[in-house]
Amino acid sequence: MKIIKTISEIQKFSNDAHKRARTIGFVPTMGFFHKGHLSLIKEARDKSDLAVVSIFVNPAQFGRGEDYEAYPRDLKRDDKLASQIGVDVIFAPEVQQMYPEGYLTFVDVGKISEILEGASRPGHFRGVTTVVTKLFNIVKPDLAFFGQKDYQQAVIIKRMVEDLNMDIRIVVLPTQREPDGLAMSSRNTYLSPRERKAAPVLFRSLMRARDMIEKGQRKSKKIMEGIKEEVASEELIRLEYVAVCDPGTLEEVNEIRKDVLIAIAAKIGKTWLIDNIIVGTPLFNEK
Amino acid sequence: MKIIKTISEIQKFSNDAHKRARTIGFVPTMGFFHKGHLSLIKEARDKSDLAVVSIFVNPAQFGRGEDYEAYPRDLKRDDKLASQIGVDVIFAPEVQQMYPEGYLTFVDVGKISEILEGASRPGHFRGVTTVVTKLFNIVKPDLAFFGQKDYQQAVIIKRMVEDLNMDIRIVVLPTQREPDGLAMSSRNTYLSPRERKAAPVLFRSLMRARDMIEKGQRKSKKIMEGIKEEVASEELIRLEYVAVCDPGTLEEVNEIRKDVLIAIAAKIGKTWLIDNIIVGTPLFNEK
Repeated sequence: MKIIKTISEIQKFSNDAHKRARTIGFVPTMGFFHKGHLSLIKEARDKSDLAVVSIFVNPAQFGRGEDYEAYPRDLKRDDKLASQIGVDVIFAPEVQQMYPEGYLTFVDVGKISEILEGASRPGHFRGVTTVVTKLFNIVKPDLAFFGQKDYQQAVIIKRMVEDLNMDIRIVVLPTQREPDGLAMSSRNTYLSPRERKAAPVLFRSLMRARDMIEKGQRKSKKIMEGIKEEVASEELIRLEYVAVCDPGTLEEVNEIRKDVLIAIAAKIGKTWLIDNIIVGTPLFNEK
Repeated sequence: MKIIKTISEIQKFSNDAHKRARTIGFVPTMGFFHKGHLSLIKEARDKSDLAVVSIFVNPAQFGRGEDYEAYPRDLKRDDKLASQIGVDVIFAPEVQQMYPEGYLTFVDVGKISEILEGASRPGHFRGVTTVVTKLFNIVKPDLAFFGQKDYQQAVIIKRMVEDLNMDIRIVVLPTQREPDGLAMSSRNTYLSPRERKAAPVLFRSLMRARDMIEKGQRKSKKIMEGIKEEVASEELIRLEYVAVCDPGTLEEVNEIRKDVLIAIAAKIGKTWLIDNIIVGTPLFNEK
């Protein structure tokens, strides 16, 4: 496994790969790997000739007062884990190289970036789509892999790839969970033992919502009430938003008539956690 | 020469070319070719293995009340001219294919898109950078060619290519002019005979500015006054802006100490014309 730090070097690697007709599978990450990352990396390795993983904590997607500085980093451990899986290249650029002085350009995916997570974290998705565009241009993958935990992000990136005619297939893989249901996230390391014990209520609330729908409840309002009630049972947790949406367009639905996305965000102490499920058949990767 | 209308077909052409290690030179145009376009196309042919020209009147770069509908189109004539030069592919997509229903994504190059032409035509450069990003992703060129007449556009595209790490070399070629100095533009066809006769005052005013600088004038204010006086001698023409700028950053300069860009825009009747010169050595293509 090679660790590459410069843009020109990885572009050379990718150009050479394409000249030899090798496909590149790409997993963009902010590092500090958990099982969710590892499942994406394994899939990239299995589905392409060459697997490239980027590790870059992207300042453009953190708002003021968010956890950019505190975000956990451990490149050595990540390198080891990636190397065990059989990654070909880790691309780990410096901030100064990704956003040099005079940087001006941003990619914006309009209204679906401004709702849910985008409403709570203004500018977040603009930072995500900008860095993903840059990484796609640098790594030139054939396939790129994202986790369902960041469902809205996946929808936005699919929209961007289609709109800007990027010749890349986006693959979305299921959320990896702890045995008690908590969605894996690098941010889980922020949780105190008490907070960690409270956190699975998010997944339990989603399971309760699924139950309600499976038992015939069709009013989104009732579903959201059920979630709020469940989350309220844990006093450490403050629910930030809950939404019942069309999984393709992310538009909120009042009456459940087909598959829906149920998305929630909550704060435990200073830690921002999100989770979601699709009730019905997931739409991703079926086109 | 092949005429390709679909995105998937030209992407296949480009992927095949890259697999055979052929370079692609690309000229994005809105068609209705004049000598300016032809000089770009010839250069693309000479500097690459395969020359691709796109013809697409891009609605996203026209504002309300601008001339999107009226913009001259003659695909047959363009095809013939391109074929005579020896172009390999003309890519001429339909609007519906470039901007299908539900389209949401835009590329924005910040403050250098909001001055000069961008101040007079809000959203214009956002439309340009978005369509150029799309065309670059579709055609996948090694080199792309732009004319100096649209100087600000060239600076913005160079900035975008650098910021978003597009692996493409941008080449800017000199403005082509009529014998009386008028910069070639597809919009010149809008001019009535009287307006056409008045139009070269723009170039004359730029020549006067150059003269003033060569004779030692260093105050931008004086240069702009000279231009205004010259243009005022033609009653049919209304000067829209005049600026003396740093050719790299487009920032206005008060005191001329090195190469400067002198950029002007004017309206003749309903026709929007622009022109510019660099006094000193052009900075483009020297890096």
